[in-house]
Formats: sequence, C-alpha cells, structure tokens
Amino acid sequence: MPVSTRINPNNALNFSGGPGALPQAVLAQVQDAILNVPEVGLSVLGISHRSDWFAGVVQELENNIRQLLGLDLSYHVLFLQGGATQQFSMVPMTLLHGKTQPPEYLHTGYWSGKVLGEARHETPLRVLWSGEQEGFSRLPRDEELQFSADAPYFHYISNETVEGLQFNRVLGRDDVPRVCDMSSDFLSKPCEADRFSLIYAHAQKNIGPAGVTVVLIRDELLHDMPDNLPGWLDYRSHITAHSNYNTPPVFAIYVVLLVTRWLLRDVSGLTNMSAINQRKAALLYAALDDSDGFYRGRTAREDRSLMNVVFNLDSAAREQQFLAASQRAGFSGLSGHRAIGGVRASIYNGLELNAVEQLTQFMRDFQQKTR
Amino acid sequence: MPVSTRINPNNALNFSGGPGALPQAVLAQVQDAILNVPEVGLSVLGISHRSDWFAGVVQELENNIRQLLGLDLSYHVLFLQGGATQQFSMVPMTLLHGKTQPPEYLHTGYWSGKVLGEARHETPLRVLWSGEQEGFSRLPRDEELQFSADAPYFHYISNETVEGLQFNRVLGRDDVPRVCDMSSDFLSKPCEADRFSLIYAHAQKNIGPAGVTVVLIRDELLHDMPDNLPGWLDYRSHITAHSNYNTPPVFAIYVVLLVTRWLLRDVSGLTNMSAINQRKAALLYAALDDSDGFYRGRTAREDRSLMNVVFNLDSAAREQQFLAASQRAGFSGLSGHRAIGGVRASIYNGLELNAVEQLTQFMRDFQQKTR
Repeated sequence: MPVSTRINPNNALNFSGGPGALPQAVLAQVQDAILNVPEVGLSVLGISHRSDWFAGVVQELENNIRQLLGLDLSYHVLFLQGGATQQFSMVPMTLLHGKTQPPEYLHTGYWSGKVLGEARHETPLRVLWSGEQEGFSRLPRDEELQFSADAPYFHYISNETVEGLQFNRVLGRDDVPRVCDMSSDFLSKPCEADRFSLIYAHAQKNIGPAGVTVVLIRDELLHDMPDNLPGWLDYRSHITAHSNYNTPPVFAIYVVLLVTRWLLRDVSGLTNMSAINQRKAALLYAALDDSDGFYRGRTAREDRSLMNVVFNLDSAAREQQFLAASQRAGFSGLSGHRAIGGVRASIYNGLELNAVEQLTQFMRDFQQKTR
Repeated sequence: MPVSTRINPNNALNFSGGPGALPQAVLAQVQDAILNVPEVGLSVLGISHRSDWFAGVVQELENNIRQLLGLDLSYHVLFLQGGATQQFSMVPMTLLHGKTQPPEYLHTGYWSGKVLGEARHETPLRVLWSGEQEGFSRLPRDEELQFSADAPYFHYISNETVEGLQFNRVLGRDDVPRVCDMSSDFLSKPCEADRFSLIYAHAQKNIGPAGVTVVLIRDELLHDMPDNLPGWLDYRSHITAHSNYNTPPVFAIYVVLLVTRWLLRDVSGLTNMSAINQRKAALLYAALDDSDGFYRGRTAREDRSLMNVVFNLDSAAREQQFLAASQRAGFSGLSGHRAIGGVRASIYNGLELNAVEQLTQFMRDFQQKTR
C-alpha cells in the first residue's frame, strides 16, 4: 500500500511537546516493519537483538549520526535506556572520579532544575547562573557567566522545552569538558558537536519514540573512571558491547535509524533541516509579533526556541477557549506544559512547514473572530 | 484491512529466544496504532506520556496484570526501563537498607550468573546452590537448599532461557522476602504471585517488545528504604508518579497492554494460557524423546522448561545442517544461545500450537532424511 493512501491527517497537525510527531514517511515504514522488516522477513518486534541484522542497524545508525554531525571515531555513539534522566546521574557518576572541584551547571528552566535535583544526589555542584527569579524568561548573556578553569565539567541544556528557550551559541570554555543535554534539539540543526565532550539526547522530540537515548562521548573522558559502577551504568560496558550490553530497545533504535535515513536522504542533512526549522519558527513568531499583543511570547526575543514556541493569551479563560477551538480544528498537543500552562507549539523535525502555515492561519482567524 | 489479509507467515514460525514472537492479532492492532490509536486519532509514537489516554493505558494495564495474577492493592505494579539487568542492581540497592546478613541467591544458569555479577557490585551475598559444575543441566532439589531465616531476601530466576530449565514450584521460606526474576515465563501460567515480595520481568519474551520491564512489589518492602538513591532508581518515585516519573517507553507499554487484553479476552486467562503452553512443550519434548537419541534434550526431565526447549544433535556439524534446513523451511530463531550453542525452540505465549506441530513434523522429516 503506498504511503500516500496511508496518511492519518491528524498526525500532520500534532504539535505535541513530546513524544513528538514523526515524519509521515517514517511512520509508513514503521508500520510495514511491525509485520515485516524487508531485509529480514519478520516483525521488528520479534527479531533478536543478537542478530546480524540488528548489529547492522546499530552500525548504520552510528555512522549516520557521525555523518550528520561530522564526528570522528574519537567519539563513541551509544543508544541507552533510562531517558535523559538516567544521564542526569550517569554524568556525575562518571566524570567526577578523582576530582575535587564541583562541576558547574546552568539553571535555565524546568528541565535544568530536574538535572540539578538528580546531580545533587551525586555531588555538590556550582550553579553558575539561574533564571529562576526571572521566571525563566531569558537565558544568560556571556558577561553573566564566569566559568572556572578547574571545574571537572560544565553542564547545560541547549533547549528548554517547557519555557521555549534555546541557546544559539556554544557555551563554556574549551579547556573544560562541555556536557550538554540536547534532548529537545538534537539533530534539528548543526550543533558544533565536536566542541562537546559529552552530548546526550532522548529520542522522543526530533528523532524517534520514547525509550532510547543517544549518548555521544569522547573516548578521552573514559580514561579515568570509577571501577565500581554497575555494568549497565558504566559507559564502557555499553561501548564494548556496541549498545548491546543487555537487551536494547530494538524497536525504538530501529525507528531512530529510519529518521536518520530520512534526514540524510530526504532532507539532505542538518543544514537543510535547520533551514526548514527556522522557517517554521519564523512563521510562528511572526504570528505572535504581528498580533498586537493578542498572542504574547513569554521569552526574550534573542533566546526564542526554534523547537517550542510558547505563548500566552490575555487570560487563562481565553487560552482554554483557544485550545478547545484548535482541538476542534484538528490541531493537537498545543497545551502548555503542566508546570506553566499557556500554549506551546512544538515544531520538531517531523512537523511539516505546511502544518505551521495552517496553525498560523488558524491563529489569525481565531484572533479576528474573538475581537 | 482485516487481520487475516495482513499475516506475515514468517512471524508464525519465529522461535526466537527473545525478543520473542507476539500474537498475530496483537501485531495487527500495533500496526494500526502506528498511524492511528483508535481512541485518540494519533500515531501511538506521537502521543504525550502526560495525556489522559496514556494514564488510562497504565491504569488498565495495572488492572489487567492484577486480574491475571490475582493480586490485590498490597502490590504496586510498575513499568520501568533498563531491563531485568537494572533490577539486578535495584533489588539489593533497595532491600538491604539497614540489613547486615547477606541476601541469598541461586546460580541456576547463564542468567542467574549475570544477576550475581551485578548484585555483587552492591553487596556480599550467599550463593545457596550452584549448578555450574554440572553444566547447568538440572535445578536443585528441595533437600539441597538450606534457606536462612535471617536473610534479608532470597532471589532466584524462575526460568533459565539459555539452558532451558524451569522451576515448577515456588522456592524459599514464607518468612523471608522472595524475589524472583520471571522475565522469561511471566504471564505464561499462574505463578502464585502473592507468595512473592518482588517479581520483575522484562517484556520481550511473553508479553511485549524489548524496552519495558514490569515490577510487582509489595508495599511493605518500601517502609524501610535508603533515602539517597537517584529518583529514577527509587521504586517510590515510580509508584508516586504511576510509572511516569520520567518519560516512559509509551509504545512498549501500549503493546504490553494489548497482549494482556489478548490474554484476558482471547485466551481467557492464565490457566488456559498455561494449558496451551504445556501442550506445545509436550509436543516438542515428545519429539526429542521419541527420536531414539537423534535429538537430545540437555536438561533433567523434571526441570524441563515449558518456554525454551533446548537440545543437541550428535555433532555441531549436524546441528548446523539442521539449523540451515529449518531456516530454508521458514522457521527462524532456532539457534541456541551463543553461550552454549545447540538448538533452542522458544515457545512463548505468542507462538501458536500449530507452529510447534509444523516444527515437530519438520524434525521427524529431517531425521528420516538424514539417517
């Protein structure tokens, strides 16, 4: 059955904050694979993780990610369980061995607050900057950040999904290992990945379903590591086993492979993906800026996220009215995060420009009808 | 499209040791859900884990598991990431708080060896019995086991998938918490679940795809717990959050829900499932026993697994010939585990009686042609 006859139009208008909408072409391939992976002739749900086929999936996916990000073999590419949350702990568990200085963190939103909570189970740490008092309405400027030369590492989140804040530059010192949670903008644009020592990203925003997390880690970080970690919390076990230390989430990894194929072949790389994502975000922010304050972006302009466009209307009642009307019009996932409410349009890789055009049209119509 | 026109015949003959074959009726529903979950109208891969729908999925799945196993609310039912391997560590991390005596373990095969390796990172322990010297060809008899009354818990594995050994009784003392890894026979039969303090089982044998692990834990075990665990390693966090502490593997959990619906509605419960599974195993073991030694079961008769029928032919060359011929005949997944070789027919819930009939017929034909 051709893809075109299998489209569910609702998926095209899914602005969910995550798990996010996947490209329609990928969904069609996933659907086939539930009964039959072409190269194998079996359901993807019943193929051994020890099969040659799955070893090939992991290898191709590793290669695709290296190619998309321009990374060489000094980085290991891992596919782990446990989400970004597990990385919140694994990073200090791994990188503080034999170190006495505290690692440095930024507190730029809801999710970096979660990072701090888990990291503090493992170590005292230094918060270099917090946006909490300003309601996470902006990101720090360079002159507000005093990085220490002797910190064991520096950690930040590149995109805060709840508040809609995104860094458009690389932070930190070149002589201190940079660690970045890129869960919500990974593979949405080129990211100068080779300036980071460790990058992690769960799949469920731009690259796949919930259940798998990509970790990129420079080999040199593993030279001095604690030896008493459980095997599944030790990056080296996963490296040695090619992400097959214990049964990996085969299905989720396969879907991420299909998304990277789509990025390479259909989109032709991250520069193109970035251009599309910028166009989508520009349309939405223009809709806010041109609304005479009917729609109000909640963040500083220079820190606006290209992934999560977060805004308010003039009252909670008006917001509910907007959300209900958008739902009736076929849009979904537009409710703001439960921590802050409001409206959030998440426009990850899988969401097409056309969907954003439909949403901005809907926003103009709603404004007109309401006033 | 009706289910009948969507069957891939290869899936029906998939004897994989895991991830195992799922019921055809479930695969058809999963395929639909990739584009459209009927109650929601969206792809299952793009629905928020914070949606009412997903809260309903978790609640129904909890209820289904309670109903299938006859468990009351003194047990919590959790759906976690990290596989059984993560539980190998979480069990001692959780249950040894304030205890001085070592926990007791059995070493009955390849997988309990893995359990011991991870548990020893956390605690000294006492191995009550090991089958290693006998090549894991049998399980212990009651008179060989001296359980301590003061052990903080006793841990064993109900079914060893690699060697094909399965306990057909509950072990341990009623006054010491029983902990059991039921990964490879969970929901394949009634299991007297209420005699255990903690049961864990990854999904990828009988109940779903790799990527989610079910944990059943008695509430009383949580009254005395360490307070310094990372949140995601603390059962209490997951209980409070209804398995939504951090983004859960939505897809895998949904598939497990569909399998439990199938068990309740199509199979009509675990007693029936057990009868079917016994019939499948009986056919295969009869094929071994009636082969005049052409096919040789590797375990003691009284400890034979109803899930994994492991056998040898008279030489490695003959085994390779058998595996190649079976592959050509449409069977898959029959290679023994890489640790011990040979042949392994895994006959989990999703594999139908008819597939076993076809395999035993093939075995008889192969024997006849070969002799």
